[in-house]
Amino acid sequence: MPEYAIGVDLGGTNLKAAAIASSGEMLDRTNATTDLTEGPERVVDDIVACIESLRDRFAGSRLAGAGIGVPGFIRMAEGFIVGSHNLPPLNNYPIRDAIEKRLGTQVFLENDANAAALGEKWMGAGRDVEDLVLLTLGTGIGGGVISRGRVMHGFVGMAAELGHITVVPNGNPCGCGNRGCVEKHASATAIESMANLLALGQNLSAKDVYDLAVAGEERARAIFKTMGQCLGIAIASLINIFNYPLYLMSGGVLAAWDYFYPALLDEVRWRSFTFRNTNTRIEKALLGSEAGLYGAAYLPVQAQLTTRH
Amino acid sequence: MPEYAIGVDLGGTNLKAAAIASSGEMLDRTNATTDLTEGPERVVDDIVACIESLRDRFAGSRLAGAGIGVPGFIRMAEGFIVGSHNLPPLNNYPIRDAIEKRLGTQVFLENDANAAALGEKWMGAGRDVEDLVLLTLGTGIGGGVISRGRVMHGFVGMAAELGHITVVPNGNPCGCGNRGCVEKHASATAIESMANLLALGQNLSAKDVYDLAVAGEERARAIFKTMGQCLGIAIASLINIFNYPLYLMSGGVLAAWDYFYPALLDEVRWRSFTFRNTNTRIEKALLGSEAGLYGAAYLPVQAQLTTRH
Repeated sequence: MPEYAIGVDLGGTNLKAAAIASSGEMLDRTNATTDLTEGPERVVDDIVACIESLRDRFAGSRLAGAGIGVPGFIRMAEGFIVGSHNLPPLNNYPIRDAIEKRLGTQVFLENDANAAALGEKWMGAGRDVEDLVLLTLGTGIGGGVISRGRVMHGFVGMAAELGHITVVPNGNPCGCGNRGCVEKHASATAIESMANLLALGQNLSAKDVYDLAVAGEERARAIFKTMGQCLGIAIASLINIFNYPLYLMSGGVLAAWDYFYPALLDEVRWRSFTFRNTNTRIEKALLGSEAGLYGAAYLPVQAQLTTRH
Repeated sequence: MPEYAIGVDLGGTNLKAAAIASSGEMLDRTNATTDLTEGPERVVDDIVACIESLRDRFAGSRLAGAGIGVPGFIRMAEGFIVGSHNLPPLNNYPIRDAIEKRLGTQVFLENDANAAALGEKWMGAGRDVEDLVLLTLGTGIGGGVISRGRVMHGFVGMAAELGHITVVPNGNPCGCGNRGCVEKHASATAIESMANLLALGQNLSAKDVYDLAVAGEERARAIFKTMGQCLGIAIASLINIFNYPLYLMSGGVLAAWDYFYPALLDEVRWRSFTFRNTNTRIEKALLGSEAGLYGAAYLPVQAQLTTRH
């Protein structure tokens, strides 16, 4: 009997789910919207409905379990989310156990960037390695670290908050309380902030700044250069810390790769003798916004593999 | 039959070795000097002589193997040292295999800071955890990361070069090619450099600066405060990256703990929400200069434990 798992990507706006075979083949998917206005029970209802609709379609197959990727910190032991800005009603709510009880199958909760990193390791750009670091470059910067094939969680589940590596000690203020976090100097939001500082236009989006860079606007190009340098400081330190073979980037900002990567690479080269002396790779992730679905689905599959060994 | 292992700490000047029971009890030790003037074969002779003199004393016990901690990067697969400033004749020499052949017992080569981290995990301040980070504060800053009870090596063995985390993007130049490495802002050498910049005296040692701080000299205290802040930036990022329960410090600079730790703690507190929201501990290591001997001896013991499971 073929085996599959269900991966869920729960965002503040969208709810996505996919049925993925244990072999890694995407079998089917479904989408819904996340309704946060009626409390956590409603969100649980919607997630359960998505999972059940997929399960109904594969009644002849064995369900290994479900994984759910969410933005925010996970308290792994308790199975709930803390400090999520995108899903405030779910904070401290026992979401994992609530869904598990309704479904009668094992449910894993995971930070969305961690899930994306695991997805890339399973079926994406990291298939050939056991250790990798992923940075998701969006409105913020998320991170996931895969160590010996598994998500690195730390002791409460808050590991890999790579967006909060300090790259400019007295730099831009961050919501986390720090200053100079890489996510305040190298995210889409940081790009928009720099465009504003340079008076490039009214309320430009990161995409607008990218279009200006493509059109030859030197100040827009300087923004991506600065962003690449700041990101490079963080990646150089990560390489010196981990000596992993692979550092991946994903997220919307990746579109501007040609404008920030050369500066990033220059920065990493001079800041990391490990980079200069090894075949360390810095690459684009491959699975795009589906990485989290793959990673979430892989959680129950991986748990079974470990148990069997 | 009781089992034991031999740990070796090979420095640029001193060669130390100890016989340590598999239970962790230090049984006996020996010391010699490192003679680098006559090439790598002579160093191998001296190491083998140290190990054999200990082995002769425990003829009735089973030797699990020997571990050797060395300053420099280890190419784990090849079993040799690269880029060691303290042991230049040994660079790229197949030291592990040479010793193994002579002794007829399994030999493990390990970076000295990694060995110290493992020693603290086995018999020191990290006995109650499976994951920890160690920073050795001496003339430079070394690092070791213990992940799930084992040394994190990275893919060629260059992981945990924590002294080369960038904390001041345009800071002091470092021999590694970077600027603003934490080891150029928070080591004994950095303390001496700051004392020179403040014209505190002629060629003051870090110990001299410490004595001035104890005597109430405000500029000496400001140096330790700056040093603590710079170290705090690195430790805050490490906490945000790993979310491990324990961060240890060892080395000669530890004597000035009361003068740098308050500034370090302030820095970590505001730069790491993970620190503020978890029971993360930042502590002094316990085994002092013997940590490396314990960790080196534990390498063959741990390898056997793994094989048996």
